[in-house]
Amino acid sequence: MAEIVYGRWAAMETIRAGRREVQQLALADGVEEKGIIADLVAVAQQKGIPIKRMVRRMMDDLAHDANHQGVLLKVAPYPYAEMDAVMAVAQERKEKPFLLLLDLLQDPQNVGSLLRVADSVGIHGVILQDRRGVGITAAVTNASSGAVEHLNVVQVTNLVNVMRKLKEDGVWMAGLDIGPNIVPIDRADLNIPLGLVVGSEGEGMRRLVRDTCDLLITLPMRGHVESLNVATVGAVALYAAWQARSWQGWAHAR
Amino acid sequence: MAEIVYGRWAAMETIRAGRREVQQLALADGVEEKGIIADLVAVAQQKGIPIKRMVRRMMDDLAHDANHQGVLLKVAPYPYAEMDAVMAVAQERKEKPFLLLLDLLQDPQNVGSLLRVADSVGIHGVILQDRRGVGITAAVTNASSGAVEHLNVVQVTNLVNVMRKLKEDGVWMAGLDIGPNIVPIDRADLNIPLGLVVGSEGEGMRRLVRDTCDLLITLPMRGHVESLNVATVGAVALYAAWQARSWQGWAHAR
Repeated sequence: MAEIVYGRWAAMETIRAGRREVQQLALADGVEEKGIIADLVAVAQQKGIPIKRMVRRMMDDLAHDANHQGVLLKVAPYPYAEMDAVMAVAQERKEKPFLLLLDLLQDPQNVGSLLRVADSVGIHGVILQDRRGVGITAAVTNASSGAVEHLNVVQVTNLVNVMRKLKEDGVWMAGLDIGPNIVPIDRADLNIPLGLVVGSEGEGMRRLVRDTCDLLITLPMRGHVESLNVATVGAVALYAAWQARSWQGWAHAR
Repeated sequence: MAEIVYGRWAAMETIRAGRREVQQLALADGVEEKGIIADLVAVAQQKGIPIKRMVRRMMDDLAHDANHQGVLLKVAPYPYAEMDAVMAVAQERKEKPFLLLLDLLQDPQNVGSLLRVADSVGIHGVILQDRRGVGITAAVTNASSGAVEHLNVVQVTNLVNVMRKLKEDGVWMAGLDIGPNIVPIDRADLNIPLGLVVGSEGEGMRRLVRDTCDLLITLPMRGHVESLNVATVGAVALYAAWQARSWQGWAHAR
């Protein structure tokens, strides 16, 4: 069954990553072939992907009125990964496991934003609780600027079971939480085999997920507004964890 | 001249902050008075603000079809601050100046998101280049979850002149930039009188703004996607700077 990917960067990274079969690149009537669009066309031609022009209204329909920027791909479904593949990335890179676990996040924008940061800090794999949370939809792919196409994302039916299994394998589960008695992100040693657990918007982690964590960490706040967006909190925590690893894998690390 | 503020939290914080005259709270027909809406009504009544019901279509028009969540305020214009007021905050709190400077950002969502984080880390003031960049519009107020109502925001006609003046006053200008020869955020001492400078989406800082900085710092990236959203980069840098100040002012600081 074919799916749709929309947005310039989402389309570009989907083609570049080459993990999904791309059946067609569609450009809206009137979109000029320059800049990133010219690059897209060149990459598509090189890979033998058929390119066609489409009326904008049809694109709007296919993208469910999202901001598609005049670019659509018709692709095979998102290739979810298995846990083994995730752990293999850590082994290949000779790095301590560095995982992101998302517990029932609802907003594709937040999930996409977190996945873009996850790619940026070199996360080995992302684990999503399936069904009631957001999966890797076109909206998530777009919001991640296509980063998700390069990431190993595992969908699991029982996040707590997976956390327990990972703990047995020596990975520490660190949950992002809010509260006075929780250590701030810089007081915990995050240079360990790490699974960073992020709860849903508004609700946070489910109770059992929280209880399964080895440690809870928090982002201090001193403002008048009592909360931060979960994607912001997750981004700062992901960077704190990578900083604890001395920017391991950064091309310019000294 | 009256302006509009829309969104539940934006309306709540505008009333709570009490810096703008609020002429009316409008709720969409059918919005139930429970949860945050009940709190809003209670606060409005306490402050003697007239409350009225409005048809949703009229709200859509007034909010230019933004997601107003059935809540509008009719308010006086946003009260921009003067530089003196900003420096007074630092003095009152007995803290080294901690400022955020935005050079021509365009996207209200990014600006709002950055201001929400600025509030969270206790920024003393935000300085915006006026005219060609985004000002504090209803979209920014909404995207900041109302945080902007508690912040000192200064609009200036010449950002470089203001940077020079601040440097004379002993404030260091640290620009967020991208490049191989720029120090990562954790290698610069940010526990100084600091102005963090963030450039626009895509373009970064203008040349003269960049040249006026005392130091340039960067957020390492190792992913396939070559950039991060400016609001994400700014959030991580703001937190790095506050962490360098040992979470000064955090209620639970130890």
